[in-house]
Amino acid sequence: MDFRAEDHQHIRYNPLKGEWILVSPHRMKRPWSGQVEDVTEDDVPEFDPQNPLCPGVKRASGEVNPKYESTFAFPNDFPALLDDVPSPSESDDPLFQMGSAKGHCRVLCFHPKSNVTLPVMTLQEIRTVIDRWIEEMQTLSEKFDWVQIFENKGSMMGCSNPHPHCQIWSSSFLPNEARIKDQYQREYFQKYNKPLLMDYVKKEINKKERIVVENCHWVVVVPFWATWPFETMILPKEHFKRFTDLKNIHKDSLADIIKKITTKYDNLFRVSFPYSMGWHGAPTGSKMKEDANHWVFHGIYYPPLLRSATVKKFMVGYELLAQAQRDLTPEQAAERLRNLSTVHYKQENK
Amino acid sequence: MDFRAEDHQHIRYNPLKGEWILVSPHRMKRPWSGQVEDVTEDDVPEFDPQNPLCPGVKRASGEVNPKYESTFAFPNDFPALLDDVPSPSESDDPLFQMGSAKGHCRVLCFHPKSNVTLPVMTLQEIRTVIDRWIEEMQTLSEKFDWVQIFENKGSMMGCSNPHPHCQIWSSSFLPNEARIKDQYQREYFQKYNKPLLMDYVKKEINKKERIVVENCHWVVVVPFWATWPFETMILPKEHFKRFTDLKNIHKDSLADIIKKITTKYDNLFRVSFPYSMGWHGAPTGSKMKEDANHWVFHGIYYPPLLRSATVKKFMVGYELLAQAQRDLTPEQAAERLRNLSTVHYKQENK
Ligand SMILES: O=P(O)(O)O[C@H]1O[C@H](CO)[C@@H](O)[C@H](O)[C@H]1O
Ligand SMILES: O=P(O)(O)O[C@H]1O[C@H](CO)[C@@H](O)[C@H](O)[C@H]1O
Repeated sequence: MDFRAEDHQHIRYNPLKGEWILVSPHRMKRPWSGQVEDVTEDDVPEFDPQNPLCPGVKRASGEVNPKYESTFAFPNDFPALLDDVPSPSESDDPLFQMGSAKGHCRVLCFHPKSNVTLPVMTLQEIRTVIDRWIEEMQTLSEKFDWVQIFENKGSMMGCSNPHPHCQIWSSSFLPNEARIKDQYQREYFQKYNKPLLMDYVKKEINKKERIVVENCHWVVVVPFWATWPFETMILPKEHFKRFTDLKNIHKDSLADIIKKITTKYDNLFRVSFPYSMGWHGAPTGSKMKEDANHWVFHGIYYPPLLRSATVKKFMVGYELLAQAQRDLTPEQAAERLRNLSTVHYKQENK
Repeated sequence: MDFRAEDHQHIRYNPLKGEWILVSPHRMKRPWSGQVEDVTEDDVPEFDPQNPLCPGVKRASGEVNPKYESTFAFPNDFPALLDDVPSPSESDDPLFQMGSAKGHCRVLCFHPKSNVTLPVMTLQEIRTVIDRWIEEMQTLSEKFDWVQIFENKGSMMGCSNPHPHCQIWSSSFLPNEARIKDQYQREYFQKYNKPLLMDYVKKEINKKERIVVENCHWVVVVPFWATWPFETMILPKEHFKRFTDLKNIHKDSLADIIKKITTKYDNLFRVSFPYSMGWHGAPTGSKMKEDANHWVFHGIYYPPLLRSATVKKFMVGYELLAQAQRDLTPEQAAERLRNLSTVHYKQENK
């Protein structure tokens, strides 16, 4: 029998992290009788006077939000990272190592209305969000070695507030994911003298089979090594190291690509699609002056849904104790997303 | 201000994996308004003629289960790993690497009754489960390089069947977690000429602050580097490399320690406590003859609950894109578990 990736289990290598993933396509035939999720909130009111992210509402800190009309950023009232804390002393025991962690957490509301998520915003509104992301990056990256912009969307992804927003956690240290991706991209660059992700994007453009959508400056692919069922990456066609490297024209076309991928996501199961997403680029702060030619700025979507609006992929036993495992192949996921409309299901009749 | 781990955020190092974790104890004060889980099934019937794990019931494969009276093991009817599949051909592109994956998946029922979980079993019944685990290890480890025994308990942990059972996935390859722990334990052994986890358990016994429960042969600790809120490890007091190294006396006292830790878990929020758990020991199969003195056999519990029977810790945005983060400290978690009774809340009046 000949090997066919869409039928036969195999492992795939993630060159950004030095990890493998188990792909078992035949397992899609398994019936599901486990936990079924609530459908993601699809009837959020435009305004809720109890919601601390809405314009004009009083937050836990006692502060009152301005009656903002586009985006609004403020310090997280319950930050996981504070800037002014004492540091642990050094230990010489290799088994009990603590380190200092300083940082800052911010929240950025995308829109004044709680029921307007990214895919249903206008391109101009998305462009404004991009501008604010870049402004925040600019300011925070002066002080912090890593600035993590991320959006948890949907209660399934631990999001405790349906108002469209992201968080920005900045830290004095390089988090694990950043450190590992820095290492693997650096090693590739030393060996091939080209950035790993620029080589990768060129090859994906030729191969086509994992491309979901593209425009002049950006490509969305289901990576060859995707872990989550419908995981995607937004990759640039030219080499940017950081979010702050983009020119106006790239920001406009990034707005276009964000609208397209998030619309396809919502259309997949005709539900406001839950995910965690975020942006990765070269380290900042004290590392700003280091050589970073191996880094390529990119976006990442980790969505949990697998079979329907209510059946997700669980990353549990085998995944936690041994290795990530997926059922449908990245090529199958890409094909399904590629074939979906870029007109949002709620706006079809407009 | 002096640094106090229970008040001030810091990072901690996991020497088994070379990773850091962010600890933000002040964040326990954050109110929770996000997703609330269903309470874990606490009213499972003793027998359900529709449940394919029950004695005498017909499974998806068409086979009928024996009317088993203690444990029962059989091949998974929807295996993620098959033994007889063609292998992908080699690629010389470092960005598109596939590898061969062969394996076998089994299911092991712990008890004939669907409502008898480990903490409410007798010591003798738990001992029988341990014997079956070791028998399965013995047989499967002849052929496979890694045999992962794991239990997903509770629908919150993706468990699709409430009948008490575990799974056993064996593979021709060393999964990521195994490979990384092999590497870090080996490096430690080369440097200090002692197994990392034997050094670690001795130090924890002296320090006491992270010990949950112990007996003659076993210690349960919340590891210094725990990621999940109430994560624990079962560590041996003498050096075993594999599950198959245990003598009868160690198996008896392992049954005792399993009963105690799972009872404490159920007592924490007075609910059948969800978790993923599993056993790690030195690699097997073709690696059985390699030197494995750096490996220490141990058990791991990853439970998701954080604040109550219905509020779990979400490993999402920051955790997926940057670094694992926890609120309460490992010492606080250990203290809470330590202070709980080893009499199960359902058996208090007996
Ligand atoms: O085999 P089950 O119990 O149906 O499946 C469960 O455990 C597996 C192994 O951890 C996971 O891959 C699945 O996502 C989960 O739902
Ligand atoms: O800050 P939030 O939205 O309340 O919290 C959410 O995102 C955080 C960052 O990914 C996680 O640590 C929390 O577990 C999750 O519930």
